[in-house]
Amino acid sequence: MQKYSRNSRISAITKILIENPNKIMSLNYFSEMLNAAKSTISEDILVIREIMETLEMGMIETIAGATGGVRYVARIGEEEEKAFANAICETLRDKSRIVPGNFLYITDIMLDPTIVHRAGVILASRFSKAKADYVITVETKGIPLAYEVARYLGVPLIVARKNSKVTEGTSVTINYVSGTTGRLGNMGLAKRTLKTSSRCLFIDDFLRAGGTVNGIADLLNEFDSELIGIGVLVDSKEVAKKLPTPYISLVDYHGVDEEGNVVMEASEK
Amino acid sequence: MQKYSRNSRISAITKILIENPNKIMSLNYFSEMLNAAKSTISEDILVIREIMETLEMGMIETIAGATGGVRYVARIGEEEEKAFANAICETLRDKSRIVPGNFLYITDIMLDPTIVHRAGVILASRFSKAKADYVITVETKGIPLAYEVARYLGVPLIVARKNSKVTEGTSVTINYVSGTTGRLGNMGLAKRTLKTSSRCLFIDDFLRAGGTVNGIADLLNEFDSELIGIGVLVDSKEVAKKLPTPYISLVDYHGVDEEGNVVMEASEK
Repeated sequence: MQKYSRNSRISAITKILIENPNKIMSLNYFSEMLNAAKSTISEDILVIREIMETLEMGMIETIAGATGGVRYVARIGEEEEKAFANAICETLRDKSRIVPGNFLYITDIMLDPTIVHRAGVILASRFSKAKADYVITVETKGIPLAYEVARYLGVPLIVARKNSKVTEGTSVTINYVSGTTGRLGNMGLAKRTLKTSSRCLFIDDFLRAGGTVNGIADLLNEFDSELIGIGVLVDSKEVAKKLPTPYISLVDYHGVDEEGNVVMEASEK
Repeated sequence: MQKYSRNSRISAITKILIENPNKIMSLNYFSEMLNAAKSTISEDILVIREIMETLEMGMIETIAGATGGVRYVARIGEEEEKAFANAICETLRDKSRIVPGNFLYITDIMLDPTIVHRAGVILASRFSKAKADYVITVETKGIPLAYEVARYLGVPLIVARKNSKVTEGTSVTINYVSGTTGRLGNMGLAKRTLKTSSRCLFIDDFLRAGGTVNGIADLLNEFDSELIGIGVLVDSKEVAKKLPTPYISLVDYHGVDEEGNVVMEASEK
Protein backbone atom coordinates (compact mmCIF):
# COMPACT_ATOMS: atom_id res chain seq x y z
CA MET A 1 0.00 0.00 0.00
CA GLN A 2 1.17 3.46 -0.87
CA LYS A 3 2.92 5.68 1.67
CA TYR A 4 2.47 9.44 1.59
CA SER A 5 4.75 12.29 2.55
CA ARG A 6 3.94 14.44 5.57
CA ASN A 7 3.05 17.29 3.19
CA SER A 8 0.56 15.13 1.34
CA ARG A 9 -0.99 13.73 4.51
CA ILE A 10 -1.39 17.22 5.96
CA SER A 11 -3.19 18.41 2.83
CA ALA A 12 -5.55 15.41 2.86
CA ILE A 13 -6.27 15.62 6.60
CA THR A 14 -6.89 19.38 6.37
CA LYS A 15 -9.39 18.84 3.57
CA ILE A 16 -11.27 16.08 5.40
CA LEU A 17 -11.46 18.05 8.65
CA ILE A 18 -12.70 21.20 6.90
CA GLU A 19 -15.35 19.22 5.05
CA ASN A 20 -16.64 17.60 8.24
CA PRO A 21 -17.09 20.52 10.61
CA ASN A 22 -17.87 19.73 14.25
CA LYS A 23 -17.68 16.01 13.57
CA ILE A 24 -15.33 13.85 15.63
CA MET A 25 -12.95 12.08 13.26
CA SER A 26 -10.95 9.22 14.77
CA LEU A 27 -7.21 9.01 14.31
CA ASN A 28 -7.77 5.43 13.15
CA TYR A 29 -9.75 6.70 10.20
CA PHE A 30 -6.85 8.85 9.01
CA SER A 31 -4.34 6.18 9.95
CA GLU A 32 -6.01 3.55 7.74
CA MET A 33 -6.77 5.91 4.91
CA LEU A 34 -3.26 7.29 4.70
CA ASN A 35 -1.40 4.14 5.75
CA ALA A 36 0.48 5.81 8.60
CA ALA A 37 0.89 5.17 12.34
CA LYS A 38 -1.49 6.96 14.69
CA SER A 39 1.46 8.76 16.29
CA THR A 40 2.42 10.08 12.85
CA ILE A 41 -1.14 11.27 12.22
CA SER A 42 -1.08 13.00 15.63
CA GLU A 43 2.00 14.93 14.59
CA ASP A 44 0.36 15.89 11.30
CA ILE A 45 -2.67 17.19 13.16
CA LEU A 46 -0.48 19.22 15.49
CA VAL A 47 0.89 21.12 12.50
CA ILE A 48 -2.64 21.76 11.23
CA ARG A 49 -3.85 22.92 14.63
CA GLU A 50 -0.99 25.39 14.99
CA ILE A 51 -1.35 27.06 11.63
CA MET A 52 -5.15 27.30 12.03
CA GLU A 53 -4.70 29.08 15.34
CA THR A 54 -1.94 31.35 14.09
CA LEU A 55 -3.95 32.45 11.08
CA GLU A 56 -7.26 32.53 13.03
CA MET A 57 -8.76 30.06 10.60
CA GLY A 58 -10.51 27.75 13.04
CA MET A 59 -9.76 25.34 15.85
CA ILE A 60 -8.84 21.68 15.91
CA GLU A 61 -10.09 20.17 19.17
CA THR A 62 -8.90 16.87 20.57
CA ILE A 63 -11.48 14.58 22.16
CA ALA A 64 -9.98 11.93 24.43
CA GLY A 65 -11.30 8.43 25.05
CA ALA A 66 -12.45 5.39 23.09
CA THR A 67 -14.85 7.41 20.92
CA GLY A 68 -12.33 10.22 20.69
CA GLY A 69 -10.47 11.84 17.87
CA VAL A 70 -10.22 15.33 16.50
CA ARG A 71 -12.80 17.84 15.46
CA TYR A 72 -12.64 20.99 13.35
CA VAL A 73 -14.54 23.96 14.75
CA ALA A 74 -14.95 26.74 12.21
CA ARG A 75 -14.23 30.32 13.12
CA ILE A 76 -13.22 33.57 11.49
CA GLY A 77 -10.75 36.06 12.97
CA GLU A 78 -12.03 39.13 14.86
CA GLU A 79 -10.73 41.59 12.25
CA GLU A 80 -12.07 39.63 9.32
CA GLU A 81 -15.47 39.37 11.03
CA LYS A 82 -15.64 43.14 11.52
CA ALA A 83 -14.62 43.80 7.92
CA PHE A 84 -17.27 41.34 6.76
CA ALA A 85 -20.06 43.00 8.78
CA ASN A 86 -18.98 46.42 7.48
CA ALA A 87 -19.01 45.16 3.90
CA ILE A 88 -22.57 43.88 4.37
CA CYS A 89 -23.61 47.27 5.78
CA GLU A 90 -22.08 49.00 2.78
CA THR A 91 -23.96 46.72 0.38
CA LEU A 92 -27.26 47.18 2.21
CA ARG A 93 -26.99 50.99 2.33
CA ASP A 94 -27.75 51.09 -1.40
CA LYS A 95 -30.96 53.17 -1.65
CA SER A 96 -32.32 51.06 -4.49
CA ARG A 97 -32.83 48.34 -1.90
CA ILE A 98 -35.69 50.24 -0.28
CA VAL A 99 -38.93 48.50 -1.18
CA PRO A 100 -42.29 50.25 -0.58
CA GLY A 101 -43.43 49.78 3.03
CA ASN A 102 -40.01 50.43 4.57
CA PHE A 103 -38.79 46.96 3.61
CA LEU A 104 -35.30 46.27 2.44
CA TYR A 105 -34.42 43.98 -0.45
CA ILE A 106 -31.88 41.48 0.88
CA THR A 107 -32.75 38.37 -1.12
CA ASP A 108 -29.60 38.57 -3.24
CA ILE A 109 -27.42 38.64 -0.11
CA MET A 110 -29.24 35.67 1.41
CA LEU A 111 -28.65 33.63 -1.76
CA ASP A 112 -25.03 34.56 -2.41
CA PRO A 113 -22.92 31.56 -1.33
CA THR A 114 -19.79 33.61 -0.56
CA ILE A 115 -21.75 35.80 1.87
CA VAL A 116 -23.98 33.07 3.31
CA HIS A 117 -21.02 30.77 3.89
CA ARG A 118 -19.10 33.31 5.95
CA ALA A 119 -22.17 34.46 7.86
CA GLY A 120 -22.91 30.81 8.60
CA VAL A 121 -19.41 30.21 9.97
CA ILE A 122 -19.67 33.30 12.18
CA LEU A 123 -23.09 32.38 13.62
CA ALA A 124 -22.07 28.73 14.08
CA SER A 125 -18.94 29.76 15.97
CA ARG A 126 -21.02 31.95 18.31
CA PHE A 127 -23.32 29.02 19.06
CA SER A 128 -20.65 26.31 19.13
CA LYS A 129 -21.15 25.76 22.88
CA ALA A 130 -24.96 25.93 22.77
CA LYS A 131 -25.40 22.15 22.33
CA ALA A 132 -28.13 22.51 19.73
CA ASP A 133 -29.77 19.32 18.45
CA TYR A 134 -31.25 21.07 15.43
CA VAL A 135 -31.18 24.36 13.58
CA ILE A 136 -34.68 25.55 12.72
CA THR A 137 -35.81 28.22 10.27
CA VAL A 138 -39.02 29.18 8.52
CA GLU A 139 -39.31 29.21 4.75
CA THR A 140 -37.88 30.76 2.55
CA LYS A 141 -35.12 33.37 2.54
CA GLY A 142 -33.29 32.19 5.67
CA ILE A 143 -32.89 28.59 4.50
CA PRO A 144 -29.38 28.79 2.99
CA LEU A 145 -28.00 30.59 6.06
CA ALA A 146 -29.73 28.18 8.45
CA TYR A 147 -28.37 25.31 6.37
CA GLU A 148 -24.79 26.61 6.68
CA VAL A 149 -25.13 27.05 10.44
CA ALA A 150 -26.53 23.50 10.72
CA ARG A 151 -23.70 22.17 8.59
CA TYR A 152 -21.03 23.89 10.69
CA LEU A 153 -22.65 22.75 13.93
CA GLY A 154 -22.97 19.22 12.53
CA VAL A 155 -26.73 18.98 13.21
CA PRO A 156 -29.80 18.54 10.97
CA LEU A 157 -31.84 21.46 9.68
CA ILE A 158 -35.59 21.84 10.16
CA VAL A 159 -37.75 24.13 8.04
CA ALA A 160 -41.16 25.22 9.35
CA ARG A 161 -43.59 25.53 6.46
CA LYS A 162 -46.07 28.30 5.95
CA ASN A 163 -48.35 25.89 4.12
CA SER A 164 -48.14 22.27 5.15
CA LYS A 165 -47.39 20.04 2.19
CA VAL A 166 -49.13 16.95 0.94
CA THR A 167 -45.85 15.01 0.80
CA GLU A 168 -44.92 15.30 4.46
CA GLY A 169 -47.64 13.33 6.27
CA THR A 170 -49.24 14.37 9.57
CA SER A 171 -48.18 17.80 10.75
CA VAL A 172 -48.64 20.17 13.65
CA THR A 173 -49.72 23.71 12.76
CA ILE A 174 -49.85 26.77 15.00
CA ASN A 175 -51.16 30.30 14.49
CA TYR A 176 -48.97 33.33 14.95
CA VAL A 177 -49.26 37.05 14.40
CA SER A 178 -46.68 38.40 11.97
CA GLY A 179 -45.15 41.50 13.52
CA THR A 180 -44.33 42.73 10.03
CA THR A 181 -47.78 42.59 8.47
CA GLY A 182 -49.89 42.42 11.64
CA ARG A 183 -51.73 39.48 10.06
CA LEU A 184 -52.51 36.08 11.48
CA GLY A 185 -50.47 33.33 9.85
CA ASN A 186 -49.95 29.57 10.06
CA MET A 187 -46.70 27.76 10.58
CA GLY A 188 -46.36 23.98 10.55
CA LEU A 189 -43.92 21.12 10.98
CA ALA A 190 -44.40 17.50 9.94
CA LYS A 191 -44.71 15.34 13.04
CA ARG A 192 -41.81 13.11 12.11
CA THR A 193 -39.45 16.05 11.56
CA LEU A 194 -38.36 16.59 15.12
CA LYS A 195 -37.63 14.35 18.12
CA THR A 196 -39.28 15.54 21.33
CA SER A 197 -37.14 17.20 24.04
CA SER A 198 -34.82 18.75 21.49
CA ARG A 199 -32.76 21.91 21.81
CA CYS A 200 -33.28 24.11 18.76
CA LEU A 201 -31.46 27.14 17.44
CA PHE A 202 -33.51 29.51 15.27
CA ILE A 203 -31.69 31.09 12.31
CA ASP A 204 -33.28 33.58 9.92
CA ASP A 205 -32.44 36.42 7.55
CA PHE A 206 -34.19 39.35 9.21
CA LEU A 207 -35.46 39.86 12.75
CA ARG A 208 -38.14 42.51 12.80
CA ALA A 209 -41.01 42.48 15.28
CA GLY A 210 -40.33 39.01 16.65
CA GLY A 211 -43.72 37.52 15.69
CA THR A 212 -42.05 34.70 13.80
CA VAL A 213 -39.70 33.91 16.70
CA ASN A 214 -42.62 33.64 19.10
CA GLY A 215 -44.42 31.43 16.59
CA ILE A 216 -41.37 29.15 16.37
CA ALA A 217 -41.19 28.97 20.18
CA ASP A 218 -44.88 27.98 20.30
CA LEU A 219 -44.38 25.39 17.59
CA LEU A 220 -41.38 23.87 19.38
CA ASN A 221 -43.45 23.80 22.54
CA GLU A 222 -45.87 21.45 20.76
CA PHE A 223 -42.93 19.07 20.31
CA ASP A 224 -41.87 19.48 23.98
CA SER A 225 -38.77 21.11 22.57
CA GLU A 226 -36.93 24.27 23.42
CA LEU A 227 -35.75 27.37 21.61
CA ILE A 228 -32.20 27.87 22.92
CA GLY A 229 -30.95 30.73 20.77
CA ILE A 230 -31.65 33.06 17.86
CA GLY A 231 -29.22 34.11 15.15
CA VAL A 232 -29.98 36.42 12.22
CA LEU A 233 -28.05 38.30 9.57
CA VAL A 234 -29.93 41.59 10.04
CA ASP A 235 -31.95 42.79 13.00
CA SER A 236 -34.14 45.82 13.18
CA LYS A 237 -32.94 47.58 16.33
CA GLU A 238 -36.22 49.29 17.22
CA VAL A 239 -38.67 46.47 17.31
CA ALA A 240 -37.03 43.28 18.49
CA LYS A 241 -38.45 43.02 21.98
CA LYS A 242 -40.11 40.43 24.19
CA LEU A 243 -38.23 37.55 22.63
CA PRO A 244 -38.20 34.22 24.43
CA THR A 245 -34.38 34.12 24.34
CA PRO A 246 -31.59 36.61 23.46
CA TYR A 247 -30.43 36.90 19.87
CA ILE A 248 -27.26 37.46 17.89
CA SER A 249 -27.17 39.48 14.67
CA LEU A 250 -24.35 40.52 12.36
CA VAL A 251 -25.73 43.92 11.34
CA ASP A 252 -28.40 46.30 12.71
CA TYR A 253 -30.96 48.06 10.55
CA HIS A 254 -32.13 51.41 11.94
CA GLY A 255 -34.61 52.23 9.20
CA VAL A 256 -34.51 54.97 6.58
CA ASP A 257 -33.58 58.47 7.80
CA GLU A 258 -35.09 61.82 6.75
CA GLU A 259 -32.78 62.16 3.75
CA GLY A 260 -33.84 58.74 2.55
CA ASN A 261 -30.62 57.00 3.55
CA VAL A 262 -30.60 53.42 4.78
CA VAL A 263 -29.13 53.46 8.30
CA MET A 264 -27.19 50.29 8.89
CA GLU A 265 -24.32 49.41 11.21
CA ALA A 266 -22.35 46.36 12.36
CA SER A 267 -23.88 44.79 15.47
CA GLU A 268 -22.00 45.06 18.74
CA LYS A 269 -20.59 41.80 19.94
CA MET B 1 6.97 39.11 9.27
CA GLN B 2 6.57 35.50 10.21
CA LYS B 3 7.74 32.70 7.92
CA TYR B 4 5.88 29.40 7.81
CA SER B 5 7.04 25.86 7.15
CA ARG B 6 5.98 24.08 3.98
CA ASN B 7 3.71 21.86 6.09
CA SER B 8 1.94 24.86 7.56
CA ARG B 9 1.59 26.63 4.22
CA ILE B 10 0.15 23.51 2.62
CA SER B 11 -2.46 23.20 5.36
CA ALA B 12 -3.48 26.87 5.04
CA ILE B 13 -3.58 26.81 1.22
CA THR B 14 -5.60 23.58 1.23
CA LYS B 15 -8.15 25.12 3.58
CA ILE B 16 -8.51 28.31 1.56
CA LEU B 17 -8.87 26.47 -1.74
CA ILE B 18 -11.50 24.07 -0.32
CA GLU B 19 -13.48 26.97 1.12
CA ASN B 20 -13.50 28.85 -2.18
CA PRO B 21 -14.61 26.24 -4.68
CA ASN B 22 -14.40 27.14 -8.37
CA LYS B 23 -12.95 30.55 -7.57
CA ILE B 24 -9.65 31.57 -9.12
CA MET B 25 -7.20 32.40 -6.33
CA SER B 26 -4.05 34.24 -7.40
CA LEU B 27 -0.63 33.02 -6.32
CA ASN B 28 0.01 36.60 -5.16
CA TYR B 29 -2.77 36.25 -2.61
CA PHE B 30 -1.14 33.21 -1.04
CA SER B 31 2.32 34.70 -1.46
CA GLU B 32 1.43 37.83 0.52
CA MET B 33 -0.63 36.05 3.12
CA LEU B 34 2.02 33.44 3.84
CA ASN B 35 5.08 35.62 3.24
CA ALA B 36 6.62 33.28 0.68
CA ALA B 37 7.86 33.57 -2.91
CA LYS B 38 5.40 32.74 -5.68
CA SER B 39 7.67 29.91 -6.82
CA THR B 40 7.48 28.43 -3.32
CA ILE B 41 3.68 28.70 -3.32
CA SER B 42 3.64 26.98 -6.72
CA GLU B 43 5.53 24.05 -5.26
CA ASP B 44 3.12 23.89 -2.32
CA ILE B 45 0.18 23.78 -4.69
CA LEU B 46 1.81 20.99 -6.70
CA VAL B 47 1.82 18.81 -3.57
CA ILE B 48 -1.85 19.61 -2.93
CA ARG B 49 -2.81 18.87 -6.52
CA GLU B 50 -1.08 15.49 -6.50
CA ILE B 51 -2.61 14.20 -3.29
CA MET B 52 -6.10 15.42 -4.32
CA GLU B 53 -5.80 13.48 -7.57
CA THR B 54 -4.35 10.37 -5.96
CA LEU B 55 -7.10 10.19 -3.36
CA GLU B 56 -9.82 11.32 -5.83
CA MET B 57 -10.68 14.26 -3.61
CA GLY B 58 -10.96 16.97 -6.23
CA MET B 59 -8.90 18.83 -8.79
CA ILE B 60 -6.66 21.86 -8.59
CA GLU B 61 -6.68 23.63 -11.95
CA THR B 62 -4.12 26.18 -13.02
CA ILE B 63 -5.32 29.23 -14.93
CA ALA B 64 -2.55 31.01 -16.83
CA GLY B 65 -2.28 34.73 -17.56
CA ALA B 66 -2.56 38.05 -15.75
CA THR B 67 -5.86 37.18 -14.06
CA GLY B 68 -4.67 33.63 -13.50
CA GLY B 69 -4.08 31.51 -10.46
CA VAL B 70 -5.41 28.23 -9.18
CA ARG B 71 -8.90 26.93 -8.67
CA TYR B 72 -10.29 24.03 -6.65
CA VAL B 73 -12.91 21.95 -8.45
CA ALA B 74 -14.77 19.62 -6.11
CA ARG B 75 -15.31 16.01 -6.98
CA ILE B 76 -15.90 12.66 -5.32
CA GLY B 77 -14.34 9.39 -6.46
CA GLU B 78 -16.35 6.96 -8.61
CA GLU B 79 -16.54 4.27 -5.92
CA GLU B 80 -17.53 6.70 -3.19
CA GLU B 81 -20.21 8.16 -5.43
CA LYS B 82 -21.71 4.72 -6.07
CA ALA B 83 -21.65 3.85 -2.38
CA PHE B 84 -23.32 7.18 -1.60
CA ALA B 85 -26.15 6.62 -4.11
CA ASN B 86 -26.69 3.09 -2.77
CA ALA B 87 -26.84 4.39 0.80
CA ILE B 88 -29.52 6.91 -0.21
CA CYS B 89 -31.51 4.13 -1.90
CA GLU B 90 -31.28 2.02 1.26
CA THR B 91 -32.54 4.93 3.38
CA LEU B 92 -35.40 5.71 1.01
CA ARG B 93 -36.57 2.07 0.81
CA ASP B 94 -37.95 2.40 4.35
CA LYS B 95 -41.69 1.71 3.99
CA SER B 96 -42.62 4.26 6.63
CA ARG B 97 -41.61 6.89 4.08
CA ILE B 98 -44.65 6.17 1.94
CA VAL B 99 -47.11 9.03 2.33
CA PRO B 100 -50.73 8.66 1.12
CA GLY B 101 -50.95 9.42 -2.62
CA ASN B 102 -47.83 7.44 -3.57
CA PHE B 103 -45.58 10.24 -2.31
CA LEU B 104 -42.33 9.58 -0.53
CA TYR B 105 -41.16 11.48 2.54
CA ILE B 106 -37.66 12.78 1.73
CA THR B 107 -37.60 16.05 3.66
CA ASP B 108 -35.16 14.73 6.29
CA ILE B 109 -32.70 13.73 3.56
CA MET B 110 -32.97 17.12 1.87
CA LEU B 111 -32.19 18.90 5.15
CA ASP B 112 -29.35 16.68 6.37
CA PRO B 113 -26.13 18.61 5.76
CA THR B 114 -23.91 15.51 5.46
CA ILE B 115 -26.12 14.14 2.65
CA VAL B 116 -26.87 17.46 0.96
CA HIS B 117 -23.22 18.45 0.97
CA ARG B 118 -22.09 15.30 -0.84
CA ALA B 119 -24.99 15.35 -3.27
CA GLY B 120 -24.14 18.98 -3.98
CA VAL B 121 -20.51 18.16 -4.74
CA ILE B 122 -21.55 15.32 -7.07
CA LEU B 123 -24.06 17.43 -9.03
CA ALA B 124 -21.68 20.40 -9.18
CA SER B 125 -18.89 18.20 -10.56
CA ARG B 126 -21.22 16.89 -13.28
CA PHE B 127 -22.07 20.45 -14.31
CA SER B 128 -18.62 21.94 -13.83
CA LYS B 129 -18.23 22.51 -17.59
CA ALA B 130 -21.77 23.81 -18.13
CA LYS B 131 -20.82 27.48 -17.65
CA ALA B 132 -23.88 28.28 -15.56
CA ASP B 133 -24.37 31.89 -14.47
CA TYR B 134 -26.91 30.92 -11.81
CA VAL B 135 -28.39 27.92 -10.08
CA ILE B 136 -32.18 28.18 -9.87
CA THR B 137 -34.63 26.21 -7.72
CA VAL B 138 -38.21 26.59 -6.57
CA GLU B 139 -39.11 26.81 -2.91
CA THR B 140 -38.78 24.89 -0.56
CA LYS B 141 -37.24 21.44 -0.17
CA GLY B 142 -34.62 21.75 -2.90
CA ILE B 143 -33.08 24.96 -1.56
CA PRO B 144 -30.23 23.48 0.51
CA LEU B 145 -29.12 21.19 -2.34
CA ALA B 146 -29.38 24.00 -4.90
CA TYR B 147 -27.40 26.20 -2.53
CA GLU B 148 -24.59 23.64 -2.28
CA VAL B 149 -24.43 23.24 -6.05
CA ALA B 150 -24.31 27.04 -6.45
CA ARG B 151 -21.60 27.26 -3.82
CA TYR B 152 -19.47 24.60 -5.51
CA LEU B 153 -19.96 26.16 -8.93
CA GLY B 154 -19.16 29.59 -7.48
CA VAL B 155 -22.37 31.22 -8.77
CA PRO B 156 -25.38 32.87 -7.07
CA LEU B 157 -28.55 30.97 -6.25
CA ILE B 158 -32.03 32.05 -7.36
CA VAL B 159 -35.21 30.79 -5.72
CA ALA B 160 -38.50 31.05 -7.61
CA ARG B 161 -41.33 31.76 -5.20
CA LYS B 162 -44.71 30.15 -5.24
CA ASN B 163 -46.19 33.30 -3.73
CA SER B 164 -44.47 36.53 -4.58
CA LYS B 165 -43.44 38.43 -1.47
CA VAL B 166 -44.06 42.01 -0.44
CA THR B 167 -40.36 42.53 0.34
CA GLU B 168 -39.01 41.79 -3.12
CA GLY B 169 -40.41 44.58 -5.30
CA THR B 170 -41.72 44.12 -8.85
CA SER B 171 -41.84 40.52 -9.95
CA VAL B 172 -42.66 38.39 -12.97
CA THR B 173 -45.14 35.56 -12.39
CA ILE B 174 -46.05 32.71 -14.73
CA ASN B 175 -48.67 29.96 -14.56
CA TYR B 176 -47.74 26.32 -14.75
CA VAL B 177 -49.50 22.98 -14.37
CA SER B 178 -48.09 20.85 -11.60
CA GLY B 179 -47.61 17.35 -12.98
CA THR B 180 -47.92 15.99 -9.44
CA THR B 181 -51.27 17.49 -8.50
CA GLY B 182 -52.59 18.37 -11.98
CA ARG B 183 -53.41 21.82 -10.63
CA LEU B 184 -52.59 25.22 -12.02
CA GLY B 185 -49.97 27.05 -9.96
CA ASN B 186 -48.03 30.31 -9.96
CA MET B 187 -44.31 30.76 -9.87
CA GLY B 188 -42.56 34.10 -9.65
CA LEU B 189 -39.20 35.82 -9.56
CA ALA B 190 -38.43 39.38 -8.49
CA LYS B 191 -37.36 41.41 -11.52
CA ARG B 192 -34.03 42.40 -10.04
CA THR B 193 -33.11 38.80 -9.21
CA LEU B 194 -31.72 37.77 -12.54
CA LYS B 195 -29.72 39.46 -15.30
CA THR B 196 -31.13 38.89 -18.78
CA SER B 197 -29.34 36.47 -21.15
CA SER B 198 -28.24 34.22 -18.30
CA ARG B 199 -27.51 30.51 -18.38
CA CYS B 200 -29.34 28.78 -15.52
CA LEU B 201 -29.06 25.32 -14.01
CA PHE B 202 -32.19 23.98 -12.31
CA ILE B 203 -31.62 21.92 -9.14
CA ASP B 204 -34.43 20.30 -7.12
CA ASP B 205 -35.15 17.44 -4.76
CA PHE B 206 -37.54 15.35 -6.80
CA LEU B 207 -38.30 15.22 -10.52
CA ARG B 208 -41.73 13.79 -11.11
CA ALA B 209 -43.89 14.83 -14.04
CA GLY B 210 -41.76 17.75 -15.15
CA GLY B 211 -44.44 20.44 -14.73
CA THR B 212 -42.16 22.47 -12.48
CA VAL B 213 -39.25 22.22 -14.91
CA ASN B 214 -41.39 23.50 -17.76
CA GLY B 215 -42.61 26.31 -15.51
CA ILE B 216 -39.01 27.26 -14.71
CA ALA B 217 -38.12 27.22 -18.42
CA ASP B 218 -41.08 29.55 -19.14
CA LEU B 219 -40.11 31.84 -16.30
CA LEU B 220 -36.50 32.04 -17.50
CA ASN B 221 -37.81 32.79 -20.96
CA GLU B 222 -39.44 35.94 -19.54
CA PHE B 223 -35.95 37.05 -18.51
CA ASP B 224 -34.52 36.14 -21.96
CA SER B 225 -32.56 33.51 -20.11
CA GLU B 226 -31.92 29.85 -20.74
CA LEU B 227 -32.33 26.60 -18.86
CA ILE B 228 -29.08 24.75 -19.58
CA GLY B 229 -29.39 21.71 -17.34
CA ILE B 230 -31.40 19.91 -14.67
CA GLY B 231 -30.05 18.09 -11.62
CA VAL B 232 -32.11 16.34 -8.95
CA LEU B 233 -31.51 13.96 -6.07
CA VAL B 234 -34.39 11.63 -6.98
CA ASP B 235 -36.18 11.18 -10.26
CA SER B 236 -39.29 9.20 -10.93
CA LYS B 237 -38.32 7.00 -13.89
CA GLU B 238 -41.79 6.61 -15.40
CA VAL B 239 -42.96 10.14 -15.79
CA ALA B 240 -40.06 12.42 -16.56
CA LYS B 241 -40.66 13.12 -20.23
CA LYS B 242 -40.82 16.08 -22.58
CA LEU B 243 -38.28 18.07 -20.64
CA PRO B 244 -36.70 21.11 -22.29
CA THR B 245 -33.19 19.75 -21.54
CA PRO B 246 -31.73 16.41 -20.31
CA TYR B 247 -31.40 15.82 -16.58
CA ILE B 248 -29.06 14.16 -14.10
CA SER B 249 -30.30 12.37 -10.99
CA LEU B 250 -28.52 10.42 -8.27
CA VAL B 251 -31.24 7.83 -7.62
CA ASP B 252 -34.33 6.61 -9.50
CA TYR B 253 -37.70 6.02 -7.87
CA HIS B 254 -39.79 3.31 -9.54
CA GLY B 255 -42.83 3.60 -7.28
CA VAL B 256 -44.22 1.11 -4.78
CA ASP B 257 -44.51 -2.52 -5.95
CA GLU B 258 -47.34 -5.00 -5.29
CA GLU B 259 -45.86 -6.10 -1.97
CA GLY B 260 -45.73 -2.50 -0.83
CA ASN B 261 -41.96 -2.14 -1.21
CA VAL B 262 -40.38 1.12 -2.30
CA VAL B 263 -38.46 0.40 -5.51
CA MET B 264 -35.39 2.58 -5.67
CA GLU B 265 -32.05 2.24 -7.43
CA ALA B 266 -28.93 4.25 -8.13
CA SER B 267 -29.18 6.19 -11.40
CA GLU B 268 -27.04 5.12 -14.32
CA LYS B 269 -24.31 7.55 -15.16
